Amino acid sequence: MVQLNENYLKLPGSYLFSDIAKKVEALKASRPDAKIIRLGIGDVTRPLPKACVDALRKAAEETGTAEGFRGYGPEQGYAFLRETVVEHDFRARGIDVSADEIFISDGAKSDTGNIGDILGPDNRVAVTDPVYPVYVDTNVMAGRAGTLGADGRWDRLVYLPCVEENGFVPALPSVPADVIYLCYPNNPTGTTLTREQLKVWVDYARENKALILFDAAYEAFITEPDVPHSIYEIEGARECAVEFRSFSKTAGFTGTRCAYTVVPECLKVKVGGEDVALRRLWNRRQTTKFNGVPYIVQRAAEAVYTPEGQKEIAENIARYLGNAKTIREALLGIGLKVWGGVNSPYVWVKTPDGMTSWQFFDHLLYDLNVVGTPGSGFGPSGEGYFRLTGFGSAEQTREACERLKKA
Amino acid sequence: MVQLNENYLKLPGSYLFSDIAKKVEALKASRPDAKIIRLGIGDVTRPLPKACVDALRKAAEETGTAEGFRGYGPEQGYAFLRETVVEHDFRARGIDVSADEIFISDGAKSDTGNIGDILGPDNRVAVTDPVYPVYVDTNVMAGRAGTLGADGRWDRLVYLPCVEENGFVPALPSVPADVIYLCYPNNPTGTTLTREQLKVWVDYARENKALILFDAAYEAFITEPDVPHSIYEIEGARECAVEFRSFSKTAGFTGTRCAYTVVPECLKVKVGGEDVALRRLWNRRQTTKFNGVPYIVQRAAEAVYTPEGQKEIAENIARYLGNAKTIREALLGIGLKVWGGVNSPYVWVKTPDGMTSWQFFDHLLYDLNVVGTPGSGFGPSGEGYFRLTGFGSAEQTREACERLKKA
Repeated sequence: MVQLNENYLKLPGSYLFSDIAKKVEALKASRPDAKIIRLGIGDVTRPLPKACVDALRKAAEETGTAEGFRGYGPEQGYAFLRETVVEHDFRARGIDVSADEIFISDGAKSDTGNIGDILGPDNRVAVTDPVYPVYVDTNVMAGRAGTLGADGRWDRLVYLPCVEENGFVPALPSVPADVIYLCYPNNPTGTTLTREQLKVWVDYARENKALILFDAAYEAFITEPDVPHSIYEIEGARECAVEFRSFSKTAGFTGTRCAYTVVPECLKVKVGGEDVALRRLWNRRQTTKFNGVPYIVQRAAEAVYTPEGQKEIAENIARYLGNAKTIREALLGIGLKVWGGVNSPYVWVKTPDGMTSWQFFDHLLYDLNVVGTPGSGFGPSGEGYFRLTGFGSAEQTREACERLKKA
Repeated sequence: MVQLNENYLKLPGSYLFSDIAKKVEALKASRPDAKIIRLGIGDVTRPLPKACVDALRKAAEETGTAEGFRGYGPEQGYAFLRETVVEHDFRARGIDVSADEIFISDGAKSDTGNIGDILGPDNRVAVTDPVYPVYVDTNVMAGRAGTLGADGRWDRLVYLPCVEENGFVPALPSVPADVIYLCYPNNPTGTTLTREQLKVWVDYARENKALILFDAAYEAFITEPDVPHSIYEIEGARECAVEFRSFSKTAGFTGTRCAYTVVPECLKVKVGGEDVALRRLWNRRQTTKFNGVPYIVQRAAEAVYTPEGQKEIAENIARYLGNAKTIREALLGIGLKVWGGVNSPYVWVKTPDGMTSWQFFDHLLYDLNVVGTPGSGFGPSGEGYFRLTGFGSAEQTREACERLKKA
């Protein structure tokens, strides 16, 4: 008789965004004239850059010819893209990464989820709290999270609260952690770590032979000089950290799907007295369970790095950051406590008057017709916070802020 | 200290195609004038159909506009593609499958690999032998294969030999199997099961509450009426089988990446006295660890089903099948025993005079300058067999066959 992976049955339903959608629909039904503005969006809204569209079109035509047709490509991605990535994202910043260490994929969600395949079941996993739910859920599936407590915490996960009290800088864990997920600039809080703050984690990982899974999906939004763009800016990180990057938010690829993961050659783990390169296992995982990203999409990702592509993505990011700034300033202007929105499209706000995240959601929805995301949806330490994003249109963002100021 | 998934360390290197490449390179170096013909190719070679190229171009342009841009799509695939698939691949054949049971993905390799995520570690897994290596390797990674013996067999896998003696029809396992991989038309042998032969497996699975993982990636090559196109043509299969389909070989998508998996609603597994739908777990897996196939690629897959698309893929498949027929007849003509090549691009030949698979490889390479694939590379029961494919050009295929006849 076939047996299921029963860890899946431990997962509670994932209702955050469907609950939000239901409330919005109910409002629409009862007040059809309400002008609802959505600032809860975690997805880009600007069109794909023209440089990428042109590359897609050209590559599509190429695949329609006998000479230009491409069948199976390398599972790790084409050299043209891996080398372009290395040149622009790392060498140009003086960071030591080689093309062999780059694995092109269909998304940071896939990679941060699938990386667990190559890790043992007994690792003690640490996550910042609030957190991108994929890190937690994929560890529940793999049996590394234990049991869900009444307090909303899994008993084998190590939670690293990021709250007003610690300035959103996670403290080192009090029990040893083997695998640590860090996402900076952070989703959902929009906060960052400085090089010095990140170095604390790299030092910890090296001392404890822990693995850092560093999600840098929002790297392109960094505007301040002391915020690292890559964990490999920190000395020693090549020995302890895997980095995830994505074209999704950087270049509007959420529907076009391309990302990459860096697994340094020198990241090794002792097994029975022998050093085993993590890269060898990830390579085996990807060549066995993945067949590479569409050729045409890899050409589109390559085009992100052309001068035209760079100019276009800079404009789009500036718009999103401009919206985030508008939101940030409006909230500060009415006396709320706000984080993020400077190196991130996300603005994280403390709910006023001790309201819960959902109470604040209801207030914004029913009184101002503005939709955001309750912080409690991202983990226990998100309670009492709220996320707004810069991914809406400039006009709608301004209009929402006017409503906030008037209220 | 971080711990690896040590099952990965049990996997021997995957050297089949690199060993072949090395031998070919060495020949080229020593005899630069040798006209080498490759009939070992497991990849399509004809250009992407024009209908698909046009759809790609149109969708690319759409994503470059404010109105047409698409961000994150549904992880399960867009309804336009799921509904088209259901209509053409199932309803048109009178098969009961609904759009909610279709999960669009980036490849049958990904899906046949990832499906193990939702299965328990103690399942007893059966594979036909010879076999597509992904089924074996992904179960090794998950700890379900046990230990590799000196005979090339993993001690916890159940091997179902498919050889001349049983007409390549696997016998039911002598120990109970919980999960059974079946690939028909088969890779690598090119053989098929009739409806009656497949029904034996569906009945077995229902009686034993086993799960059949049915890989129908080569369905488009079926030419004979008694060969089922889908396992759901068999009564009761909806209660026990998941089916994998792919646009790779059907429509030249090996470099464009699109496939789908069917998980019927009524496929349920008892857990602690309760029926759990496998679909619920697969949906959770895909929504947590996957972000969908590129919108533009889904539009290209949709175009496969247009009258132009259908005409183009029929022409390409006819060419590949024509090549397979040429190879098949040439081999039969020189007195070899041959299977496949009728409902499949693959031709499976018994090596003459008791030669091993690699001895026959060497003979073809060095004496005729023709490259094929040793059957032993696909599993212990592949020893003494050899795979040739219809994916080369018609001209080169004919030339290779001339050499075979002369030798």
